[in-house]
Amino acid sequence: MRVGNLPGIRRLPMYLNLLRECKAEGMATVSATALAARAGLVTSVVRKDLEMTGATGITGIGYSTDELIAAIQSFLGWGEPLDAFLVGAGSLGSALLGYPELRATGLNFVAAFDPDPRKVGTTVHGIVVLPLDKLENLAARMGIGIAVLTVPSGTAQAMADILVKAGVTRIWSFASEILQVPDTVTVQRQDLSAGLAELLVKAAKR
Amino acid sequence: MRVGNLPGIRRLPMYLNLLRECKAEGMATVSATALAARAGLVTSVVRKDLEMTGATGITGIGYSTDELIAAIQSFLGWGEPLDAFLVGAGSLGSALLGYPELRATGLNFVAAFDPDPRKVGTTVHGIVVLPLDKLENLAARMGIGIAVLTVPSGTAQAMADILVKAGVTRIWSFASEILQVPDTVTVQRQDLSAGLAELLVKAAKR
Repeated sequence: MRVGNLPGIRRLPMYLNLLRECKAEGMATVSATALAARAGLVTSVVRKDLEMTGATGITGIGYSTDELIAAIQSFLGWGEPLDAFLVGAGSLGSALLGYPELRATGLNFVAAFDPDPRKVGTTVHGIVVLPLDKLENLAARMGIGIAVLTVPSGTAQAMADILVKAGVTRIWSFASEILQVPDTVTVQRQDLSAGLAELLVKAAKR
Repeated sequence: MRVGNLPGIRRLPMYLNLLRECKAEGMATVSATALAARAGLVTSVVRKDLEMTGATGITGIGYSTDELIAAIQSFLGWGEPLDAFLVGAGSLGSALLGYPELRATGLNFVAAFDPDPRKVGTTVHGIVVLPLDKLENLAARMGIGIAVLTVPSGTAQAMADILVKAGVTRIWSFASEILQVPDTVTVQRQDLSAGLAELLVKAAKR
């Protein structure tokens, strides 16, 4: 699988935030140079990142703010509610349920599940934690294709197996282990320590 | 600032996890091919990533597991305790305090701070939350150079200003805003929605 400019894809949500700021400041158009200054990047990188989305700027004017927002959202598949399950209602899962930056993407947690019977029935950020044996039926009934996995590493594969069986095709996993899934399922492993690695290497290169 | 192979740097913590697994399984050496199979990557990518660290494999044998672990840790500046402050003891900050993957990096939270007086004095994962006015003095006394910032976006810049004044030179920020800091300070913006963007684009490309 080849997805091209991965660092650029990862920067798109930041551009969205900055464009929303520009819009709130009344800017109808915004240049790659202005975006680059706000983002702390060089203009050529911003231009190349935005090219992916198919957005086209006008020389000397820049991009229409609204059109660029729409192009990025459409490229990312954001903007409309993206119904998702949370699996693992521990402290990280609970934090994600209430994380405002995630809600801005359209990610909409419709149910939370936990293997721990002591957590079942509790409410986290307004969402009742359900037992795992309800997952398959509910996923089919609600047409859920995406799940966020925040269980401890030792149990992540078993949870992924349940999600795959339930027809979930996109898994965003915060566990450190590498999950084995069929080719039809996409897993994004969110390793928070990758961010720390990037920070330390950047700082050391100064 | 040019740091080279950023996606590769972000993969190094994953290799460390996999190498620790290999070590636990009694493997004294490990080939790039074997690592690639565990990581779900192609061998050439793994080889290129590991090259950064200066580790050298032997044709037909691979890398010494211990030496490769040491080379990655040394490249990342991990392995020894990395004393850090947490600023923002809300739900995300609390989750990070207890996140086992982060502790494995050596990141060691020695104190937590919060601007909210109602949080001051509470204990999160064994760490007492202190008022912000203690930050500068404590940073100097303990020689703290790194802080993890988990306050809501509207207040992140004010917290960054306090951290910079206190001599903290590396800030790992989970707020969406772009922080303005002097050139001597490195900020890593951890945008969780970047991981979601990567997942959705990868899945759409299938």
